[in-house]
Amino acid sequence: MRLSRYFLPVLKEDPKEAQIVSHRLMLRAGMIKQQAAGIYSWLPLGFKVLRRIEAIVHEEQQRVGHIPLLMPTLQSADLWRESGRYDDYGEEMLRIRDRHKRDLLYGPTNEEMITDIFRGHVNSYKDLPLTLYHVQWKFRDEMRPRFGVMRGREFLMKDGYNFDLTREDALHAYNRHLVSYLRTYERMGLQAIPMRADGGPIGGDYTHEFLVLAETGESEVFYDSAITDLTFGDREIDHDSHAACQAVLEEFTSRYARTDETHDEAIFAQVPEERRRSARGIEVGQIFYFGTKYSEPMGATVVGPDGSRVPVHMGSHGIGVSRLLGAIIEASHDDKGIIWPEGVTPFHVGIVNLKQGDPSTDSACEAIYRDLKARGLDPLYDDRDERAGAKFATMDLIGLPWRITVGPRGLARNKVELTSRRTGEAEEIAAQDAITRLAGVYAPILGQPVSAA
Amino acid sequence: MRLSRYFLPVLKEDPKEAQIVSHRLMLRAGMIKQQAAGIYSWLPLGFKVLRRIEAIVHEEQQRVGHIPLLMPTLQSADLWRESGRYDDYGEEMLRIRDRHKRDLLYGPTNEEMITDIFRGHVNSYKDLPLTLYHVQWKFRDEMRPRFGVMRGREFLMKDGYNFDLTREDALHAYNRHLVSYLRTYERMGLQAIPMRADGGPIGGDYTHEFLVLAETGESEVFYDSAITDLTFGDREIDHDSHAACQAVLEEFTSRYARTDETHDEAIFAQVPEERRRSARGIEVGQIFYFGTKYSEPMGATVVGPDGSRVPVHMGSHGIGVSRLLGAIIEASHDDKGIIWPEGVTPFHVGIVNLKQGDPSTDSACEAIYRDLKARGLDPLYDDRDERAGAKFATMDLIGLPWRITVGPRGLARNKVELTSRRTGEAEEIAAQDAITRLAGVYAPILGQPVSAA
Repeated sequence: MRLSRYFLPVLKEDPKEAQIVSHRLMLRAGMIKQQAAGIYSWLPLGFKVLRRIEAIVHEEQQRVGHIPLLMPTLQSADLWRESGRYDDYGEEMLRIRDRHKRDLLYGPTNEEMITDIFRGHVNSYKDLPLTLYHVQWKFRDEMRPRFGVMRGREFLMKDGYNFDLTREDALHAYNRHLVSYLRTYERMGLQAIPMRADGGPIGGDYTHEFLVLAETGESEVFYDSAITDLTFGDREIDHDSHAACQAVLEEFTSRYARTDETHDEAIFAQVPEERRRSARGIEVGQIFYFGTKYSEPMGATVVGPDGSRVPVHMGSHGIGVSRLLGAIIEASHDDKGIIWPEGVTPFHVGIVNLKQGDPSTDSACEAIYRDLKARGLDPLYDDRDERAGAKFATMDLIGLPWRITVGPRGLARNKVELTSRRTGEAEEIAAQDAITRLAGVYAPILGQPVSAA
Repeated sequence: MRLSRYFLPVLKEDPKEAQIVSHRLMLRAGMIKQQAAGIYSWLPLGFKVLRRIEAIVHEEQQRVGHIPLLMPTLQSADLWRESGRYDDYGEEMLRIRDRHKRDLLYGPTNEEMITDIFRGHVNSYKDLPLTLYHVQWKFRDEMRPRFGVMRGREFLMKDGYNFDLTREDALHAYNRHLVSYLRTYERMGLQAIPMRADGGPIGGDYTHEFLVLAETGESEVFYDSAITDLTFGDREIDHDSHAACQAVLEEFTSRYARTDETHDEAIFAQVPEERRRSARGIEVGQIFYFGTKYSEPMGATVVGPDGSRVPVHMGSHGIGVSRLLGAIIEASHDDKGIIWPEGVTPFHVGIVNLKQGDPSTDSACEAIYRDLKARGLDPLYDDRDERAGAKFATMDLIGLPWRITVGPRGLARNKVELTSRRTGEAEEIAAQDAITRLAGVYAPILGQPVSAA
């Protein structure tokens, strides 16, 4: 993309309404615009990151065999009366009446609807196991929406639901979700720690939240610092193997790590003192096993091997897709702006032309731009007639991980400058070498397989 | 995908509620499930086609330089009070009140919001031309939703908005949209004819609708049959050239083609009688130029070259993304089921194993499945323990354009059968030749460049 033809409305000044850094930086970098309390437009740069995150979520879900579908944003109130949650849910549920005076609601989650889909179409244990998921906009009418996309009212969530014959199979699905989530977050450059949590309105007492450590987190968390040494990496796991997934669960949950809802001082005291940590965390996902809580009242049963009908065991598993943008920025920024991890950056590299209009720098930039695109990379070329300082400030603010700077003095020696946003290190290098270097950096990211076997 | 692990709830019997063939086939093929009047879940197969169509729309928009963003589904009523449409819009607008008694609405379209984004961020004619678009769920509270996704209440639409300094520039944007739409629909296997239409609630008297001819169309249309000989093909057009886009507009709109809203018998009578046609059409898109209708009341102005502020000239341009599934099926089916055009098919090819459990057919199918995936194709392997007739019926119903049938007798001669869904022609051929043939068929589709220069 050429910046002169893009829509990147960066702000020069800090917006007053933003209380936390991610909200401030998303507004300043022209990523979002508030349209009503807790309701945002995703401007082009923000939308691009949102799509990258959504794509990672889809890829990792499909890698482990989960099947995408899409449920609507609006739901019939009758469905929620069946589960008993229509009256329980309280004021966070946005209730709507249509022109025929029928009660609808803007879905805050989809347990009822997916159970309805299941019971309408699945009849036999032979069709299990089954995990369906979608990535869809939700609405929760928060009393006090704030912190930008971190606590918005209209937000994008991935929610998935497993249907299994037995508790044991459903716990395997739970573990498989944990495995896939670990990998999902790592691809986004995040360390998200699974912590014992509370069921809340979804229900179930078997649940883990995934938390990213950050000073601005809404939750107080307590953990054994040894857990931060764990990484999932690019292990190849057989996702059908109960033992393999169980082993990952044990590895990542055997250390003490809890939110304040489930924190237990007595157990925490057994952690060696030098490893005891309390900190703030941002919740970016949660997995639940809740057995037959919805299948029983809603009649989601299958014929089992012995011919009798049994309610299925279920769980639900969510990733806060839109909130992840905030969480990533909270975890990765400096005083100049955002620092995107390579896995989610809106553009792979920025090109800064120090002397726009100069035939040699213009043609060098055009050639670099073209060659990067030919390698499958997505560059942002700042081709505006602006001074160098303004161009650098914009690139630093929007946080592209790499920058190629092209100026007449460097070109005289056949060199450009390749700069890392994270370290600030700059290197004089031939343009073709910079392109090859970047192609190498992004090869593992661009090469991610998209669908499961 | 292996069918044994997929969720494809096909129906054996025709659903009673479906009045038109696309609705019936989408229900029977397990693509959608109604959740409330005019509100559908997109089951996995339906969701897959929806995403393919959405991807084509994004690619073609970006090819001509339009910039994607995403506006929320819910909007503040205040914005619509500014344009005067809050009171005008009538009962089709779904009005909502939140917990703080603020008036919201579920967006039926986005002229007001995009104008608000524009006026908040753009100040100079130097930032024009600008076209922003999104693909987002809309809601129109139809009195009588029917015909499945063809006249739903919650529906997915691409809507784009151009901002230009002059009427002439805005008309170029209009023409550029026409060019991009012609190409978009052809990639989906559709002939969509631009016809003179009526402005309706969007406004403006300069507008064309794109109509697909089909017996079940809701509009009566009148046209010169010569127009159906036109195809856009894979022309390379300079989208910045006013003359090039104007020439395409003239080519595709100089023949008589109008909906009943603008039909004029006297002009129509001038078409040679043997070329005069009246038929039914399904509207799949519409483009509008409406000048300063929104920019003036809402104060969307820029500083022009002479230093004075002028309201921008705008247009809006929509494609009915979810409704396109219905339109494509109406235009492409037979009595056995759907016939997907290659550009939008959910899976590129089906593999039918005639003797599941037989080591030779199983291993041949596995090898074909693996090789197709290695070529970048997306096969659906029917690995269920079902009789051949049921497998064929499912493949015909869901409409994959190609089928590879693997049986012991053919394998004894090192052959499989490659069958075209459209023509029914079957050919005995070596498995590797079938794979090579399919890779060739899909090469132009998989090779579509994704982003603009």
